[in-house]
Amino acid sequence: MKKIIVVGAGNIGKAAAKALLESPDFELCGFVRQKSEPVTGFEKIPVAENVFGLPEKPEGAIITVPSRLVEPIESKLLENGIYAADCFDIHEELPKMRKRLQKSAEKGKISCVVGAGWDPGLDSAIRTLMFSAFPESKIYTNFGPGMSMGHSAVAKSIDGIADAVSITLPLGKGKHLRKIYAVLEKNADKKAVEHAILSDSYFEHDECSVEFVDSAEPFFDTKHGVFIENIFGNQKMNFLMEIDNPTLTGNVLVSAMRAAFLQKPGAYFMPEIPPFDFLAEKGFGYL
Amino acid sequence: MKKIIVVGAGNIGKAAAKALLESPDFELCGFVRQKSEPVTGFEKIPVAENVFGLPEKPEGAIITVPSRLVEPIESKLLENGIYAADCFDIHEELPKMRKRLQKSAEKGKISCVVGAGWDPGLDSAIRTLMFSAFPESKIYTNFGPGMSMGHSAVAKSIDGIADAVSITLPLGKGKHLRKIYAVLEKNADKKAVEHAILSDSYFEHDECSVEFVDSAEPFFDTKHGVFIENIFGNQKMNFLMEIDNPTLTGNVLVSAMRAAFLQKPGAYFMPEIPPFDFLAEKGFGYL
Repeated sequence: MKKIIVVGAGNIGKAAAKALLESPDFELCGFVRQKSEPVTGFEKIPVAENVFGLPEKPEGAIITVPSRLVEPIESKLLENGIYAADCFDIHEELPKMRKRLQKSAEKGKISCVVGAGWDPGLDSAIRTLMFSAFPESKIYTNFGPGMSMGHSAVAKSIDGIADAVSITLPLGKGKHLRKIYAVLEKNADKKAVEHAILSDSYFEHDECSVEFVDSAEPFFDTKHGVFIENIFGNQKMNFLMEIDNPTLTGNVLVSAMRAAFLQKPGAYFMPEIPPFDFLAEKGFGYL
Repeated sequence: MKKIIVVGAGNIGKAAAKALLESPDFELCGFVRQKSEPVTGFEKIPVAENVFGLPEKPEGAIITVPSRLVEPIESKLLENGIYAADCFDIHEELPKMRKRLQKSAEKGKISCVVGAGWDPGLDSAIRTLMFSAFPESKIYTNFGPGMSMGHSAVAKSIDGIADAVSITLPLGKGKHLRKIYAVLEKNADKKAVEHAILSDSYFEHDECSVEFVDSAEPFFDTKHGVFIENIFGNQKMNFLMEIDNPTLTGNVLVSAMRAAFLQKPGAYFMPEIPPFDFLAEKGFGYL
């Protein structure tokens, strides 16, 4: 049983912790979070504000903080010899971030898996397999309808916003509309806040619509989905998921954590890892 | 450009040859087949009855002969230092056959990919990813409706059968009906032939129905499909394909051939290989 901590104790952190408790090969040995209070539902698990404050040094860490906070935390863990998996979700920044984490991983002589959520992550592996089978095809990834945890976290972090939920609506052929339900802080400037959302790199590439509401709670829903289409003439491959967003992210992070221990030192994306390495039980039932 | 041969020149052999010609990293340098006549559509490609009869020694071989003929051919190629990929399709025999080919691969200090069609093969990698993401789920693989090339080849090889087509009809939850359209040879015994089909290990696990026809040709159709369902409570993952059977098998074999060159010496199943290794161009567009 390998000793693993979870960094961050939000929806994904709790889902990853639950998945660790259900894994035959892992032991949840701590949380790292900003306030060192016990995590609801995991009251017996030690909590600290950083990894060195925990009673024992973990072998691995699952990082569930918002994407923009991941890198400094992960590189520090890696350089201290702690294996890691994160669910960093800014697609276009993945290759550069991986390059930097590669150095930290080599320094610590260990491995990490970068972008190990359901997209990027699981979907990336599926798309790679689809494309390998039909190299001339076009692949479209259609998300939702569902709440994007990454986009909601970014919207919430904007000055003047008290709470926010960002819903992803598929428009077909890989295009999306993002509907942001935002609660303004007192005295915040609507125009400025709206501009800040729309010009953030998380939102600027998509069609977006901001609606100011009294409460974002009615829009909070962890159900999500994806429809990946791969079309080449009369032939097609489709991958469809209807899932609970934090549950699946937590599960994928635990699989990635497991695989990290099996790779040569370095930083990996999920399509660079043999699918068998993600399994707790390495049987051949899925051949 | 790596020099590759195709062993077998049936539907899959021709599809693999076409896929090789379209690959930026491979050169089709010969066919090995029983009669050393040119292969229709590939008249300029050298043909021989065995690999040593070809003008040059290939670096890799794609083996497309019926499953039961694969192993002796593949082990000989491996022991002679030729990388290999096959589309052996008898699921339950895969682990044992891999073990034996592993020895041949180690002897030749090279690698091969075993069971590299669309199922086993591509679907195996998809199932493994699905299961890694939801370890407590149930996965059902539903084939067809469509013609099974493997089952048709086995039916055709039975004494007393002149020609045959085996159609797979999905009954749901991973159960299938196999409908075999068989043309009897003159003086063949219907009862004996039917018994031989139904007791073959390819057919004995499924519900089967044999119909004797004057010509199997009207039932010949290379379209096929699969629907893989992964269900866990309210959540689901589905993978759906509607494809041309030999085309997809040929493409997957070429991807597997490519990946074979990147692995440490040994015999591999597709889920044991990083999906990125199947790509001719190792970009990050599919992240």
